Parts: sequence; structure tokens; C-alpha cells
Amino acid sequence: MEDLSFLPDLPSGPLDEFRKTATFDWKRLKLALEGDINLLKLKYKIWHTLEKDPLFAHPSVTPSVEEQKRITQLQVNRINHYKFLTPEVMRLSYVKKTRAIMTINEAVQSLNPSVSVKMAIGIYLPSNALLSLGTERHYKFYEALLVKREILAAFALTEVAHGSDARLMRTTATYDATTREFVLHSPDFEAAKCWVGNLGRTCTHSLVFAQLITPDGTSHGLHGFMVPIRDPETLETYPGLIVGDMGEKIGVNGIDNGFMMFNQYRIPRENLLNRTADVTEEGVYESSFSEPSRILGAALENLSAGRIGIMQESCNSISSCVSIAVRYAATRAQFGSAAREIPLLEYELHQWRLFGYVAAAVVFKIYIESFTRVYLKIVEASNSGQKVDNLSESVSEIHAMVSSSKPMTTWTVLRAAQECREACGGHGFMKRANLGDIRSNHEATVTYEGDNSVLSQQAGNWLLRQYECSKTQAVDSPLGTVTFLNHTSEIMERRFACTHTSQLKDKEFILSTYKWLICWLLKETHEKYESLLASGLTKFQAKAKCQVYKWQTLTEVYAEYLALLFCWEAIGKKEKEIQPILERLFLLYGLWSLDKHLVELYQGGFASGPGLAALVRGAGRELCGALRPDAAAVVDALAPPDFVLNSVLARSDGKLYQNLQKELFHTPGGMQRATWWRDVVPTQQSKL
Amino acid sequence: MEDLSFLPDLPSGPLDEFRKTATFDWKRLKLALEGDINLLKLKYKIWHTLEKDPLFAHPSVTPSVEEQKRITQLQVNRINHYKFLTPEVMRLSYVKKTRAIMTINEAVQSLNPSVSVKMAIGIYLPSNALLSLGTERHYKFYEALLVKREILAAFALTEVAHGSDARLMRTTATYDATTREFVLHSPDFEAAKCWVGNLGRTCTHSLVFAQLITPDGTSHGLHGFMVPIRDPETLETYPGLIVGDMGEKIGVNGIDNGFMMFNQYRIPRENLLNRTADVTEEGVYESSFSEPSRILGAALENLSAGRIGIMQESCNSISSCVSIAVRYAATRAQFGSAAREIPLLEYELHQWRLFGYVAAAVVFKIYIESFTRVYLKIVEASNSGQKVDNLSESVSEIHAMVSSSKPMTTWTVLRAAQECREACGGHGFMKRANLGDIRSNHEATVTYEGDNSVLSQQAGNWLLRQYECSKTQAVDSPLGTVTFLNHTSEIMERRFACTHTSQLKDKEFILSTYKWLICWLLKETHEKYESLLASGLTKFQAKAKCQVYKWQTLTEVYAEYLALLFCWEAIGKKEKEIQPILERLFLLYGLWSLDKHLVELYQGGFASGPGLAALVRGAGRELCGALRPDAAAVVDALAPPDFVLNSVLARSDGKLYQNLQKELFHTPGGMQRATWWRDVVPTQQSKL
Repeated sequence: MEDLSFLPDLPSGPLDEFRKTATFDWKRLKLALEGDINLLKLKYKIWHTLEKDPLFAHPSVTPSVEEQKRITQLQVNRINHYKFLTPEVMRLSYVKKTRAIMTINEAVQSLNPSVSVKMAIGIYLPSNALLSLGTERHYKFYEALLVKREILAAFALTEVAHGSDARLMRTTATYDATTREFVLHSPDFEAAKCWVGNLGRTCTHSLVFAQLITPDGTSHGLHGFMVPIRDPETLETYPGLIVGDMGEKIGVNGIDNGFMMFNQYRIPRENLLNRTADVTEEGVYESSFSEPSRILGAALENLSAGRIGIMQESCNSISSCVSIAVRYAATRAQFGSAAREIPLLEYELHQWRLFGYVAAAVVFKIYIESFTRVYLKIVEASNSGQKVDNLSESVSEIHAMVSSSKPMTTWTVLRAAQECREACGGHGFMKRANLGDIRSNHEATVTYEGDNSVLSQQAGNWLLRQYECSKTQAVDSPLGTVTFLNHTSEIMERRFACTHTSQLKDKEFILSTYKWLICWLLKETHEKYESLLASGLTKFQAKAKCQVYKWQTLTEVYAEYLALLFCWEAIGKKEKEIQPILERLFLLYGLWSLDKHLVELYQGGFASGPGLAALVRGAGRELCGALRPDAAAVVDALAPPDFVLNSVLARSDGKLYQNLQKELFHTPGGMQRATWWRDVVPTQQSKL
Repeated sequence: MEDLSFLPDLPSGPLDEFRKTATFDWKRLKLALEGDINLLKLKYKIWHTLEKDPLFAHPSVTPSVEEQKRITQLQVNRINHYKFLTPEVMRLSYVKKTRAIMTINEAVQSLNPSVSVKMAIGIYLPSNALLSLGTERHYKFYEALLVKREILAAFALTEVAHGSDARLMRTTATYDATTREFVLHSPDFEAAKCWVGNLGRTCTHSLVFAQLITPDGTSHGLHGFMVPIRDPETLETYPGLIVGDMGEKIGVNGIDNGFMMFNQYRIPRENLLNRTADVTEEGVYESSFSEPSRILGAALENLSAGRIGIMQESCNSISSCVSIAVRYAATRAQFGSAAREIPLLEYELHQWRLFGYVAAAVVFKIYIESFTRVYLKIVEASNSGQKVDNLSESVSEIHAMVSSSKPMTTWTVLRAAQECREACGGHGFMKRANLGDIRSNHEATVTYEGDNSVLSQQAGNWLLRQYECSKTQAVDSPLGTVTFLNHTSEIMERRFACTHTSQLKDKEFILSTYKWLICWLLKETHEKYESLLASGLTKFQAKAKCQVYKWQTLTEVYAEYLALLFCWEAIGKKEKEIQPILERLFLLYGLWSLDKHLVELYQGGFASGPGLAALVRGAGRELCGALRPDAAAVVDALAPPDFVLNSVLARSDGKLYQNLQKELFHTPGGMQRATWWRDVVPTQQSKL
């Protein structure tokens, strides 16, 4: 067994009594969740380094939005300076190197999400895009971005009037053969690029997607261009550009999202990212698909890497939330007698409110860690020119998995953050509980990198295609997530026949019920879709009318099934001693999730009568009760160190009220008379 | 018909095409929702007055938390100065006067929730408490608070370690007969009063609830005291007090929530609010229940008035949210062809996401307006010494109604705010969309004035008692909300037998299905509770084990039923021409809410097979589709004027992108180089 002594022991205190009932060692569970001891060490190294750096101290008063942007920039500079991505790591395999980058990203995100977003969209995303869309001539940008960290970029796709529908974006890049330049232009404000992270204040360059138009007037669709935005010496924007900041947002205010309009703005011809297509000096458009497998793999990475990153970050957010709420619930008692007040954690309702999310945090973490491995291996194989069987089919399946999982996980985490805040009552409403900030910073994830509602439709498309496939031939599911569709009719014959909760606390029951649900939802959605097509609607119209309770529920159910499937498989490979707790969390998550789909199970005839609902909910409650003795230790494994968790309600010493007192007594100016006291008593004459 | 020309016409623009399909006049609907033309006029008078006052201009950059507190205080002063509560109104009947106060509160809340909260807890709540708990000797405080507006108070009940459980609060008020004073004392930080609004910075006095102890050492339980906190001349806190600010919060940061510890702090004996009990000069405790009906009525008002205020404010919050999202959905198009992009409002999924909340906004508004009338009439009758039949039973029923409705409405509004933000995509994430602020400011309502989870247990207690009652005698339901329990067995015999959606779009279907649900949930909860008691648990333990899917679902269902019941009755009294749209919204809300309880309907045997779910959901979708032509006009009726709605995404002119451009281009400093640009390029040398 690996030595985990680098993980600091937790301080003794009121949480002891909740920890001593644990059936496992929290450090072993923490390792299992991280999946790799070296990555876990890297994370702790980063956290310890940043904890010692005054630049990363938590401000006691929230700085202005402008100051948040400045601090975020300084923190990015500092992290670049620390070089956590060592030359040794840079020499590792693609998979290992990328996982190290992801780990750094996660470690930074748990501390200040704006910093990780700023780096992701300013360094990693554009440098990846340069690799996949650009050629040798763009290496100088790649080097300056990723290797030397001299410039910060942005990624400009969305326009004011077009987000989800990229097809209709209206920024043009017209080639001028006389000067060998592209002329970028925004026809009007509706075509202004917007929401571009790093554009408002800080980037020097931006990747810009524009409709490429050749001198003959032909539009060749969206292409990527590397566009200079600001003079790297003076940070002044160049003439021909209108660039501004999007202003204050609900969260991640350390990011300077910007908008931009081009007024006949000229860039060199060479700035077109020309891996798949180029324009000759004379202005002839040439498309070159010389290395289809490499391009496909690279395209896959661009599409999915950002969304996988969001899911990894979401795992950290939900981990922090449930850690705060569970520690609070252990140390906060209410009702009972003065001599023995009852900790919130003892109440069945409180367990039910929190433990489903605790289980989700663990299942998501294991799912995403495991899925990331699979994903990176395929990208690596494809990038290295290795022949990958069914590459195109794998790419489609991965896209469907990501497109369903990103919505499902980010929405679940958003609900978790809210429930945890409410479960901490009024004290949870304090800024220093950190639940509000975690939630606000997380909120954008349900919208960006593909709006959840739109994204889940794409996953549905793939599922429907597989379903149709299954009727005439075997399904194309190289990752095996829907091979069971080859047995749809047997699956659909299954009926609920349990009579006791113990029969439901079973992996087979859960997974096979999910399979039934997916098959039934596919059948329903498919029938409705076909009947709408038959009635004369276009595909687009028919799809739009199949979303509510069909397409959308289907992709949600599929994503939950994926989480369970991957998690179960991964549990079998974990250390023996922590498998039992992981299995119990798996079961809880499975039943807690199935609970949301009971209507469909009744509607589709899987069950009738009181048994199904009573047993699913009964088993869920039993699993919650059984988790109580382990709950504190589970969140010890989920929680980052106190400095990172940054919640006055949930220090690992469990000294809730002492910590609260210290914070309140030490608030700068919190106990002084307000400097504006004269505004309170302008003409006060009362002698009461 | 009343002349509604005082309501300004809405400007012409892109929303015209969505307005011209309306089947009714939005101004008539607006009047119907407000319920009283004079109150509607008062609201507009307030809004027009404040719009002209620079002090109420919306800041373009969010001020610091400290500055928000200052501005809130100044705005409170200014509103006091405007005297919207005219001497004429003060001479009106209790009901009319109170409704005017409530209307002022609502008008102010839609603009700046911190101001209305500050006035509610600083003026109305303590002055009401003085009336109900105090006697003549406290009139000077009442006059200074409400009439002269010379002082601002606070209401200190919650302690650091005790919120929901008031019984165990530990602040003491020990009578000292030698000096004829009460000595207030906080044994430790856990007994510090906290979360007290206005205490952190501004109040001069606070109502404090403490355990009254007589010189013989007997504790007589919690009593109210009027306690001087700050010198009204200097705003310095008095010696013997430790007073501090709670710091930054998730929302309503204009409120200075504070904490306070007493160190043997002396106040005059007369400051005990002595209506129900007093301590003689010699230190003898005397309880006097001379006017039980008045006390009961007053107690009722104190308990419920604050929660009714929260529900009224919640109605405004949900109205603003759905107005923003629906106007955005009409003016934002995505997908389709370049020539005819499809407005989001046309998508079935988008309708489904929003229209249930539109219906909820209308139903809640009518329900709460109607319930408030009933409530105030009972309080008036009881206060005036009139004999009210079943006063005690009415008080209990009202408490149950409020205790179930406050959780149900505030939670629904919170979900609405979130869904509306998401439905506005990235643009909804902008601060200036106002959805984030509405949500953050609303969020505390699910916790304060009785945590929703705890409050709903109280409503459940009453329902269970009525259910038990119904078995042996007639139920005590003077307001008639559960008289149907006298027919439980007939109701429970009903079975779902519809075969077409038209049969479900029916008031009778909805209300009778709700009755069935309530009966079934009562039966289930009661059986479980009894079996737990029989197994040896205490009442408290047994209740705690009946919450999940029973007690809590029951009170939620009861609250939805109340909203429907009151709303339906009120619709019948509205102008004929707007009854059809109100009825359709009623049906949509009813089916959309029933949709959440399909599991229980299957589980309890009300239905089996696909019909119920398919028809309830089908009918709901049909009603959404049918609402499309009226949606813009419905939100015109729900929306306050643009100045109050304060959303760049939803000006009534519908010029989405022009308004967005203006806002972005006019952001102070938004297009300038950051003053901290040197932090971005500390050693930049790249010549790229």
C-alpha cells in the first residue's frame, strides 16, 4: 500500500465522535477518489505552495470587480512562475502530461475558479486549438502561449446574436490578394464577438472564428484566425477594433469577458489556421484532408476537453459543498434537550437532503476520473497516428457521453450547492461559509461550453441513431455504453418483482432498471419522432417537439447510467478495504437517481402498485441511515484542506462556534461605528 | 370599468407581433392581479416618484457592501420623508391601512429589497410587536418608530447556536429589585444574538427576547424587552454591549445584520413588554391574561404578517423573473434559417421551462392577495374586540396555511429565478440582466422567518390533527381549507378514468385530484407516525422519521391546493373579459404542479398504466402551446415599469440588442485600458 503520510492528519475536536464510527480510513478513500498517488501529491504540493503565498490569501472583504480581475491576473502570472508543470512532466507521455495539466487546473480551480478559467481559455484551449487547427507557421504562437507563457490569448466564437447556432455567425474574414491579408469585419453590433474570456482587459491575441470569404465572393464557412488584439508592450488595443468589457456577472468575476467589433481590420494571410484548409496568396481556397485520423482526433480533443475539464471542476465544487454541509450538520445541534441537543446529521430528513449529493460527489469523481483515462488514451492513439479501430464511432460515442454528462453533472452540482446552502440555514448565507461563491462561480457551467439544454439534444441524436441501428444490425458502441440495445426486446420484458428493500440494494437491479428506462425512453421518443416526421414536420421541427419528457429525460437517464457503469467498473479495481463504502455510495446514488424516474417506470409498465415507489424510497432512506456513521469520514476524503475549502462553517477541527466567533470578531471595521453614521442620524433629536 | 389610463402604454417595437396576438388587454389583467385600483395607483405613484429621485438611480457598478448599507439607509430616510403613508390613509380602517403599508412595501421591494427589509424589521415589525406585547408605557417607542420615524429598531431573537429552537435560547434578563432594572447577559458567544437586521450598523433600539429570571432564581421563559443599543445622537453603542456586523452575505447586502453580546447590561424595569406578564417593582412575576381574544389576534399578526409579507414580495420577484425571461425569449431567435430565425418562445421545451412559472406567478399573486384580505379581516375583527367565531381555530388554520405556503411559494420562486436565468443563456449571467440579483436577494426567504423545512412541519402537525379529528367528529376548519376531510373515504375511492387531455383541463379534475392526494398522504403519514409511536418512539422522534416523502410532501401538496382553491374562487370575481386567460393559467399551474406528484398518484393506486402521466403531461404541454399567443401580454401585466424591472434583456420596447449595445458601450471604463495594465505585462518582451 502506498504511503499516504504526506496527507496531513486532521485536528482533533468535536468531529472526533463522528469520525471514530467510520468503517474505513479516509486517506485510503481520498487516494481512491484521486486515482493516482502522484497526482494527489501534485495537488497537495500546489495547495501547500499557494497557502504560503500572500497573493493567494483570502480577502476579508470582497474586492471590487475590477480588482478581482487584477488579482486573478496576478495569480495567473504567479502560477506560471511556479512552473508546476515541470520539464520532467512535459516529457511524459501525452496521457500523463495531460492528466498533470488537468490536476493543476483542478487544484487551482478549487481555490479560485477565475484563475483556472483564465488559464484554460487563455493558455490551454488556444494552444490546443493551434495544434489541431494550425500548422508549423503558428508554432511561434504556441510557444509563446504554452511554453514561454509570454502572451495570453482568448477564444472568440460566440456573437451577440448567435451562441448555440454557430452556423449563422456573421463576422467575416475577406481575403485581399493585393495585400495578402484577411480583412475582418463585423457588419453590426449583433455580430460583435462577445462573452470572450480574457478579451475585456487582458489578452494580447485572440483566436477568432469568422466566415472566410475569397475574392470571388464565395463564403467558405467558419475558419479560425489568430488575431492580434493588444500591443503586448502597452496593452493598448489596435486601431480598427472596438473592444470592451462585458461588465459585472453573477460569478467568476475575476474573468474579464469582453466583446469586440472589427472595422475592416487587417491581419496577415498566415494567421489563418490552415491545417484543414488554406487560401493561396492569389486567393484560391484549398481544402486539404491529408491526415484524416489526426484531424479527427484533434477535433475530438477540442470539442470534449473543455467539457471534461468542466466536469472535473464540478466534482471539486460538489465535494466542497457536501463537505461544508456535512461537517456543519455534525457540529450543529438543534432541538432535543438542553443536555443533549440533536445534531442535524441525526435527522432523517437532513440525511436525505444531503447524502444523495454526498454519494453523487463520490460517484461523479470516480466516473469522470475513469472516463478521462479512456478518453485520453483514444486521443493519444489517434494523435500518434496509431490505427484505432472504429475511431470515428468512438469519437461519436465520446461526444454523446460528454454531451449528456456535462449537463447532468453540472445541473446536479448546482442543485447540490443550493441544498447545502439551505441545509446550513442562516449561517450558510454568510459569504464566509463559501457556499454562495461556490454556487455562483459554478453557475455559468450549465450555460457555457455548450448550453446544457442544447448539448443534451446532441447526445439524444446519437442515442436515437443507435436505437435505429439496433433494429437492423448491431449498434456502433466501441466504448460499450449502449451495446445492451442489441437486446432491447428482452430488456423491455423485465418487470419489477421485488418485495423487500434488500433486493433493490443491488448493482444488478439498478443497472438493469436503468437499461429498461433507456430502452423505454428510446422507444417512446423514437415513436413520437417518427410520427411527427410522418405528419410532415421537418427533422428540426420534429426534434423540437420531442424534447419535453422524452429526448431530455433520455439523455439525463443515459448520463446517470454512464456514471454508474463506469463507477462500478472502477470500484472493482480499488483497494479492497474501501470497496464496501464505495459500493454503498454507488447503491445510494443509483437509487436516489432512479427515484427521479419513478413516473416513467410506472408509465411504461415496469411496475404498478405501491411496491416500486415504496421500496426504492425505502431502500434509499435505509442507505442514508447506514451512511451516517461514515459520513464524516467520506467528506474528509472529499474535502480539500481548510485553506482551500475556505469555509468558516467547516474547518476540519470542527470547532464551529469558536471559528465563527473569531471570524466575526476579526472582521475589519465590523465592530466600529460606521464612518457614515451621520447619514443614519441626520436630524436625530429623540432622547428616548 | 375603471379608467386605467394612468398606466403608461408600452412602447412599440419587436414585441408588437407577440402582443398583438393577445386575447385580452394587459392593463385589465394588471388590475385584476393587483386587486384594487387605488393600491395599483399608489404603487405607480411610488415608482414614478422614486424614478425621478437620483438617490434611487441604479448604480452602473455595484457599490461595496459598506456603501450598499449606506445607500439603503439613505433610501429608507428618503422614503420616510416622502410620506407615502398619508395622514388620510393612516385614518382608514385597519384593513385598508395595512394593505396600503403592504403595497408600499411591495413597491419598494421590487426596486431594492434591502430597503423594504430594513423598513419591515426596523419599523413595522417592532412597532407591531410593541402594540401586541407592550402597553401604554411603550407608546413612546411606537410613536418614535412608526409615526415620527425618529428611531430605527431591530428584532433580536435568534442566537448563534439556536435558531429554529427558540426554547433553548440562553440570553438572560435577571430582575434586580434594588435598582428596579433588568440585567441582560449573554453567558457566552453561542448565546450571542445574531443575524439581527439593522443591528450591525444602524439601529438605536432593539427588541430583545431573553429568559426572564426573577430574584428568586425562577426562569419564566422568553419575554420581550425594548433595549437601547446606540446613543441616538452619536450612534455609539452603549458600554456593556459587544455589537458587530455579520459581514458580507449572499444577498440583501444593504441590510446590516449584526450580532450582540450583553455583559451585565442594565435596562429599566419598564422596558419589559408587559402585556401578558409583568414583574412587580419588588420582583414578583405576574401573568395577566385579561383580554385573551385581543392577545390571540395580536399574536397571530406577529407570527404571520412577516411571512405574508415575504410571500407578497416573492410574487413580485417571480413576476420580474418570468417577465425578463419571456421578453428575452420573444426577442431572441436561434436556429432556423438566416431569413427566419426561430424565437426561443416558439420552442416547446422553452415554453415548458418558462410557462409553468408564468402560471405560478399569476396564481400566487391572486392567491396571496385573496388570502391577505381574509387574514386581515380576521385580525381586524379580533383586534376590535368583535367576537369572532372559532377565533382560536381560525388562528390555527391560518398558521397552517402560512406555514405551508411560505415554504412552497418561496421555493417555487427560487427555482423560477434559476430557470429564468438559464433560459436567458449567457446574457442572463450578466449582472445587468438582474436575474442574478433577484435570485440572490430572494434566496434568504427560504431560511428566514422560519426555515422552510421546519415551518412545513408545523403545518403538517395541524393537518394531522384535522385528519385525526375527521375520524370521530367534524374537522375544525373555519376557513374551509380541509372541510373535505369529512368525506375522506368517498374521496379515496376516486380513481383516474380520463382518456383525453380535455378531461384534465378542468378545475374539478385538478381540485379533486389534489383532495385525493392530501387524503392519501395524510393516511400514509398518519399510519407511519402511529406505528412509530407504537414502537416506542417519542412524538418528536416519530415526527422526525415521518418527514421524507410524507410530512413534507403533504404540506407542499396542501399549499398548492390552497393556492388553487383561493385563486379559483377569486377568478370568479374578476372582470369577465379576463376570466378566460386566468382560467387557462389556473389550469396550467394545476397540471404543472400535479405533474410533480404523479409518483404518489401511482403509488397510492389512484391510477395505473400509462394514461395518467401521459395525459397530465400532454395536457400541460397543450396548455403551454395555447399560452404562446398570450405570453407577452401576460408578462406585460406581471412586469413592473422598466425602471423597476431594471433588466437590459427585457425593456418593454423589446429592442434587445440596441439596449444591450447601449449598456455595454456606456459601462464606465469598460472600453479603456485597465489602469492595472502593467500587472498584465510586467516583463513582456514578445514581439509577436
